[in-house]
Amino acid sequence: MYYIGVDVGGMSIKGGLVSKDGKIVARYTVPTNVYNKDYSISEDIRKVVEGTMAEGGVTIADVEGIGIGQPGAVDSVRGVIRYSNNIALENVPVVDELKKFFDVPIKINNDANCAALGEQVFGAGKGYNDVVFVTLGTGVGGGFIIDGKLFEGRECAGAEPGHMVIVVNGEKCNCGRKGCWEAYASVSALIRQTKAAMEKDPSSLMHEEAAKEGKVSGMTSFVAAKRGDKTAQEVVDTYIGYVGEGLINLANIFRPDVILLGGAISKEKERLTVPLQKMMDEKSFGAKFNPRVEVKIASLQNDAGILGAAALLLD
Amino acid sequence: MYYIGVDVGGMSIKGGLVSKDGKIVARYTVPTNVYNKDYSISEDIRKVVEGTMAEGGVTIADVEGIGIGQPGAVDSVRGVIRYSNNIALENVPVVDELKKFFDVPIKINNDANCAALGEQVFGAGKGYNDVVFVTLGTGVGGGFIIDGKLFEGRECAGAEPGHMVIVVNGEKCNCGRKGCWEAYASVSALIRQTKAAMEKDPSSLMHEEAAKEGKVSGMTSFVAAKRGDKTAQEVVDTYIGYVGEGLINLANIFRPDVILLGGAISKEKERLTVPLQKMMDEKSFGAKFNPRVEVKIASLQNDAGILGAAALLLD
Repeated sequence: MYYIGVDVGGMSIKGGLVSKDGKIVARYTVPTNVYNKDYSISEDIRKVVEGTMAEGGVTIADVEGIGIGQPGAVDSVRGVIRYSNNIALENVPVVDELKKFFDVPIKINNDANCAALGEQVFGAGKGYNDVVFVTLGTGVGGGFIIDGKLFEGRECAGAEPGHMVIVVNGEKCNCGRKGCWEAYASVSALIRQTKAAMEKDPSSLMHEEAAKEGKVSGMTSFVAAKRGDKTAQEVVDTYIGYVGEGLINLANIFRPDVILLGGAISKEKERLTVPLQKMMDEKSFGAKFNPRVEVKIASLQNDAGILGAAALLLD
Repeated sequence: MYYIGVDVGGMSIKGGLVSKDGKIVARYTVPTNVYNKDYSISEDIRKVVEGTMAEGGVTIADVEGIGIGQPGAVDSVRGVIRYSNNIALENVPVVDELKKFFDVPIKINNDANCAALGEQVFGAGKGYNDVVFVTLGTGVGGGFIIDGKLFEGRECAGAEPGHMVIVVNGEKCNCGRKGCWEAYASVSALIRQTKAAMEKDPSSLMHEEAAKEGKVSGMTSFVAAKRGDKTAQEVVDTYIGYVGEGLINLANIFRPDVILLGGAISKEKERLTVPLQKMMDEKSFGAKFNPRVEVKIASLQNDAGILGAAALLLD
């Protein structure tokens, strides 16, 4: 028996046939379309599910359930995409639409929640009961596992740690507030911080690195810092400081076993976790007498979405 | 049958005999002592429990359980005061010590957690499943009820929303970090903000109000603002803004049914809740499509501690 995990993204909808022990044994992908009244996203998800089964040489009789990870606000109880910003969607009853085609349990949840669950079931969070997962990508997303279960807030509308203000009246955030963690700890924020530092220091190696890459990216400061550039190192240190402040906030609220970092920036591994663990050990509330919170890199990388969606069936 | 709720504070240890419907039918209080190896706080709690029973004319046979609300870090599973700052305590196995005297269930928890639970069981949180309780007092404390149950974090060491940084590198906090919510939204913070504004504006009515009261207090700005003082109104608005930023952070993470405000400042009632509800409705994440978070004043006031401690037996 298998699960099917579907990872919906702005560019593509990826499906995976997942074995019980968390191996992806077949894959199928379609590009993300523009959806409207006449063509629902459920139609593309159906294609992905069928394509995935065909690739794996199985039928729906071999599938125990279908899980879908979706960016944006999802009502996981009613199986509805409440709202998605990047793919223009509003109130789409995906689960009901798919049930017409597949007579198996179908679940949908927010993509960051799925990734959190995937990490706890199959990845770096295995064996931990209380896991905070934070993704440092285009935005800052997160998911919370409390006592082995996904915590979503009332009507699945919580778990938005990226929209926790860490600098009152600070940088503008897409959500309409000012000073959100996302406006300081996302890749977009790091690029902004990098550009500002480059402007001030024309001699920084970051200019050379950006020219090589053809643009300023989330890696520019990290790469130049590795080459010994002082200004770049300052950018990296300041950025990690912002990341750390948010992580400690979450530690003080949730006090989990472990905080897992995913997303593009997490590829920097120890360059992130070493200073962040130090901050955590020194500055989290009652660090001397309270249980330690570990800071680790998430392990599922690009497969977190598919595996996490499949893990919805196990929750 | 009754419960006994014990509310441990820096000045006194208050006991209450609590009926099943949340009425305090008898009370007994002793002053808080200095405790050491030879004299444990359990000894004073024992006196409070016995005094409370005597006042109520009952014996331990009439008591279903004893609940204790304790400031600081409490291991509620093992029944140990892990650490308390205001009353110098470290690793006191209160529950085991009291079990020698009382053969009934005995539970202990952090005082803000107790107040949260008390409000949800007996107070303004009645009927809600997901409640965030925030106390705006000397410090900023909090408690979280998720799906009707107290959420304490791993080993009961979470639920410290006062130590969420809202201004990176901001005002110094007692916890060692800079910019914690407590350093902006506590009574002590408001007094600091009031004093700073008074210094800048010698004509403000706040000077008159402070002279009347003999000191600058958490009420000085609110009272002067009510009399039409512009500088005082600015202090109040700024303060409420800081409170609101923290509340919205918690709404975005927990998306509860309701956020309840307790502590000294909560006596300002609508002057707090009206602007805070407006902020919440405008600025919480996805306010247009996500379920609304209500902001209300907690109702149990000074009895929250006793009633919340008693409610531990019901959790």
